[in-house]
Amino acid sequence: MKQIYFDHAATTPLLPEVADLMHDILKNTYGNPSSIHATGRKAKAIIEEARVQIAKLMGCNPSEICYTSGGTESDNIALRKAVACAGVKNIITTPIEHHAVLSTAELLQEESNINLHLLKVDEKGNFSLAEMEKLLQNNKNCLVSIMHANNELGNLSNIDAIGKLCKQYEALFHTDAVQTVGYFNFNLAESNIDFLSASAHKFNGPKGIGFLYIKKGLKITGLITGGGQERSLRAGTENVASIAGMAKALSACYANLPEKSAHIKSIKQHFVKQLQEAIPTVTFNGDVDNSHYTVINVCLPNSEAADLFLFNLDLRGIAASGGSACSSGASQGSHVLTAIKCAEDKTNLRFSFGVFNKIEEVDEVIECLKSMMPESVKC
Amino acid sequence: MKQIYFDHAATTPLLPEVADLMHDILKNTYGNPSSIHATGRKAKAIIEEARVQIAKLMGCNPSEICYTSGGTESDNIALRKAVACAGVKNIITTPIEHHAVLSTAELLQEESNINLHLLKVDEKGNFSLAEMEKLLQNNKNCLVSIMHANNELGNLSNIDAIGKLCKQYEALFHTDAVQTVGYFNFNLAESNIDFLSASAHKFNGPKGIGFLYIKKGLKITGLITGGGQERSLRAGTENVASIAGMAKALSACYANLPEKSAHIKSIKQHFVKQLQEAIPTVTFNGDVDNSHYTVINVCLPNSEAADLFLFNLDLRGIAASGGSACSSGASQGSHVLTAIKCAEDKTNLRFSFGVFNKIEEVDEVIECLKSMMPESVKC
Repeated sequence: MKQIYFDHAATTPLLPEVADLMHDILKNTYGNPSSIHATGRKAKAIIEEARVQIAKLMGCNPSEICYTSGGTESDNIALRKAVACAGVKNIITTPIEHHAVLSTAELLQEESNINLHLLKVDEKGNFSLAEMEKLLQNNKNCLVSIMHANNELGNLSNIDAIGKLCKQYEALFHTDAVQTVGYFNFNLAESNIDFLSASAHKFNGPKGIGFLYIKKGLKITGLITGGGQERSLRAGTENVASIAGMAKALSACYANLPEKSAHIKSIKQHFVKQLQEAIPTVTFNGDVDNSHYTVINVCLPNSEAADLFLFNLDLRGIAASGGSACSSGASQGSHVLTAIKCAEDKTNLRFSFGVFNKIEEVDEVIECLKSMMPESVKC
Repeated sequence: MKQIYFDHAATTPLLPEVADLMHDILKNTYGNPSSIHATGRKAKAIIEEARVQIAKLMGCNPSEICYTSGGTESDNIALRKAVACAGVKNIITTPIEHHAVLSTAELLQEESNINLHLLKVDEKGNFSLAEMEKLLQNNKNCLVSIMHANNELGNLSNIDAIGKLCKQYEALFHTDAVQTVGYFNFNLAESNIDFLSASAHKFNGPKGIGFLYIKKGLKITGLITGGGQERSLRAGTENVASIAGMAKALSACYANLPEKSAHIKSIKQHFVKQLQEAIPTVTFNGDVDNSHYTVINVCLPNSEAADLFLFNLDLRGIAASGGSACSSGASQGSHVLTAIKCAEDKTNLRFSFGVFNKIEEVDEVIECLKSMMPESVKC
């Protein structure tokens, strides 16, 4: 059966040229980058060239890029080490962050006696910079952790404004940019971002690899300890092929970003327009006017559980995701939709688009959604 | 130039069929195993089939296998979570463990106020079970962490005897088996091992993936927190292609282990014999009578620094490693050779062999070593 993949916020297809590069390295460059002989140096050269490439694309120094096993590990290092090494006593974040941030912050509250401040979010998932500023005024030694784009709603944060506030009040700023690296341009050297998390499999790269940007001058120690890899910040033999694959995927994203983003934008716009025409009573979760161009969170005027709805889409070869975290292996509902007080008696679905999607796929999915709705809600 | 790779304790070449399998998965199975749709379920099936395969080979239950980013992370989880979750107050280990264990244990001593007990090692790198038993008698809430085969010397530990002692004194037992998984048979269900660390790139699998065996009934939480992956023990999207590659590599190792081990043993024996003939004053570091069949640590009666010697071998296309940890990216000498009071005025080199090595390669390397020695030490 033909498959339509509209779940790019969960993971993205690997670029074929990235798979081919990785295959070549897996087969031919097996050295340990820490070995001093030619076989090791060849592997070392690959990961250091990749670091230079990534740093250039992110507008920072190669020494500020620390390879990790992915976005979750990057988030963990940033939060845990800001507390353990940088004297952070207060974490300011939102109730709609990814679990890698939210659960970790909650654990740190228990384990390390820090104060966790959750900014209020309105029904669109927006928080207030004024509330953030008040917290920064009243608390010393803060880490602000705000994701660049929300993975369920698509909401974009104003990381420039947050960075300025953090600088003004001498707070550290971490952003989980897992949904936006490869989709928006960054100039980290000129930003007030102290930590930025990225994950290769969200930008058509491999799973199991990511990086953490750590601004020069920040003194932190490793979460995973042992050998001296990554300047003692991340022990363990480096994942050479995946690191090279990540750099190649990121380069490919930025090589033709305007075309790619325009294409994905047009897919999303077409989806929204067609859906509104097909099911006029549809609404959207999150702040659709300030949203990542890859994601749309749909609220269908239907009482069917999202899971069952997704199941039926799946039977037709369509991959989408619940607003519900069931789609991420957990059995509870989505903490994000709960936080924005989303109607639980409706069907909330996330569709997220990628560069390989086609306009015709949108039409098929809309047709399918329409056919699945009871007659009563179609007008 | 032709390369001879005698550094398998550092890392091993990937099996071509593993590279091909990974290439296929990277290209075609990009789903997130946590997604409930067909694309996700296909990825989920791959990692769960791999888990069953690995568990069968290791003689344990699939639920006891937790995927990690490699041996170092596995060691970190075992040590850190034994302390944080299992009430461990004493860590008993040796001064010749891998840094992933030793540095982590030292950090835990600082951070968590546990007692670190380092067993004495003799000039061969052997420790005494009697000393271990005394420590277990005199201390409650112990974790014993002893590697199965030492990565620098090859010394094998009697993990059955250690396991029995640990059971008798109600201590937990962790073994870093990074050098032995895929090279010796395991029956973990019948062992007294509570935690076992493994790393795929040491058994002709990919870098950046490994596993930690955690005996059923042990209640620990994750080191990297966030999503509910790996039963909440290890958050982060799973590295699907590498997990499948690891299972395939491990299966290949155990499919013809007697032939493979006999081949590697014959390489090592030939190397030792030829070296003794060529340079009669050569000696060996570690306990050569109780040693892993892949590793030999050589002490040449030469005053040249190991680094310079390795450099010259490298110029001739031969990859070996210093007893020195320089070869692992650190600038200090080897903590293992220091612990066994190894002669610093001699040239200490590690040669480690793999399944693709050939007898003729040994002869070439011996010829080369001989030519590099001053005339005075050849007789």
